[in-house]
Amino acid sequence: MERTGIGRRRWVIPEGYIPEYSHGPEPQMTSHETACLLNTNQEPAQVEITIFYQDREPVGPYRVTVPPRRTLHVRFNELKEPAPVPKGTDYASLIESDLPIIVQHTRLDSRQAENALLSTIAFPAD
Amino acid sequence: MERTGIGRRRWVIPEGYIPEYSHGPEPQMTSHETACLLNTNQEPAQVEITIFYQDREPVGPYRVTVPPRRTLHVRFNELKEPAPVPKGTDYASLIESDLPIIVQHTRLDSRQAENALLSTIAFPAD
Amino acid sequence: MERTGIGRRRWVIPEGYIPEYSHGPEPQMTSHETACLLNTNQEPAQVEITIFYQDREPVGPYRVTVPPRRTLHVRFNELKEPAPVPKGTDYASLIESDLPIIVQHTRLDSRQAENALLSTIAFPAD
Amino acid sequence: MERTGIGRRRWVIPEGYIPEYSHGPEPQMTSHETACLLNTNQEPAQVEITIFYQDREPVGPYRVTVPPRRTLHVRFNELKEPAPVPKGTDYASLIESDLPIIVQHTRLDSRQAENALLSTIAFPAD
Repeated sequence: MERTGIGRRRWVIPEGYIPEYSHGPEPQMTSHETACLLNTNQEPAQVEITIFYQDREPVGPYRVTVPPRRTLHVRFNELKEPAPVPKGTDYASLIESDLPIIVQHTRLDSRQAENALLSTIAFPAD
Repeated sequence: MERTGIGRRRWVIPEGYIPEYSHGPEPQMTSHETACLLNTNQEPAQVEITIFYQDREPVGPYRVTVPPRRTLHVRFNELKEPAPVPKGTDYASLIESDLPIIVQHTRLDSRQAENALLSTIAFPAD
Repeated sequence: MERTGIGRRRWVIPEGYIPEYSHGPEPQMTSHETACLLNTNQEPAQVEITIFYQDREPVGPYRVTVPPRRTLHVRFNELKEPAPVPKGTDYASLIESDLPIIVQHTRLDSRQAENALLSTIAFPAD
Repeated sequence: MERTGIGRRRWVIPEGYIPEYSHGPEPQMTSHETACLLNTNQEPAQVEITIFYQDREPVGPYRVTVPPRRTLHVRFNELKEPAPVPKGTDYASLIESDLPIIVQHTRLDSRQAENALLSTIAFPAD
């Protein structure tokens, strides 16, 4: 079955917040915020992430590559260049790809003894 | 890359409920209900929020401005004019903007000792 | 601003499951599964809910009315006619309205000492 | 009312992760990842699930049938052929059906003493 071109090139996640602390064994139970990307194409997808803040200019692009026929679960905690995403700060993200991909947003919050989860398909903006 | 006009002008969040009490340090762990707004445009977005109830007329508009290239995470708990949103009461919200924006709904519920989270992209209604 | 006709006439929630037990004060912390409906029209919306099961014929319609300019958060636990929705059983729901409405799905699960939450905008199927 | 053809033939869930351990009584409180499928048609829906990974080729198809007018809540934990889905591993899933269906993604995570939940309607990709 033809699986080229599934998804969209531009996605938005208006909610972003990396909890400042965690409970439980690392790295699984470390509080984190994730963008799950799927590339069903036969070529690598070049992805650029831009982070928007409440009180300063956007930062980016952060560049990641999703190989063909692969998923990549990007933890915002681990983005380094051009600058780490600060913890305990409201942000939003714009995810742009040269090939169609699909994006889902998930957070694991383990600030208290028991973890909490949220997830939603991101907003397809093209 | 052109980032003007990303999103929609009218969004709906049918679920609304501000828990009546909280556990944990304020303000991060205070139970709250949030609409996360992202404005990728080069102009400020003028946003009007209308709150619908089960047993009385809608209240609003609540007015907020999202500056250009900024996100704003609006806590319904903190809306004051024309009237605070009561806790422990079912509501829904309609979010209308003069420029395209993107909206995500999140709740942190810390009524019990450990917090719970929910989130979804709001419904784009235009 | 014109607010007639916002939303869709047919919505689907494939996930349904009412937890069999609960912790905490009733009725707020009782485990429940909710369809949050918003009617922004100037007329009442007549809504029919059909419940689908894994191993038997669908049951319905359950009838509810959402008054004009009102939200109604319907707990599946409280549906009575034509038959209560059994607890601890997988189901799905189809929500059909004579006027456009917006639907969001939420579950509060308090089977263990601390509650968990999930939510998503339902799937607009027309 | 005509209920044939509700939904889409291709759905995507970019987030996938089966927690490695659980707390609480089985099988309800076993950590699991679910795709909830609804078939409102008058014919059975033949569904194929393909699992994508971060570092190896996709695996599938896994075949399930959803009878007419039925829902099926598929636990990824229980998929066996062509190979079980490993726990503690990032994956994504593509769900393809010969008839239109509707798909919602849910996870119950009971790794810690209290369970957490997430859910979202999957991304309709056709």
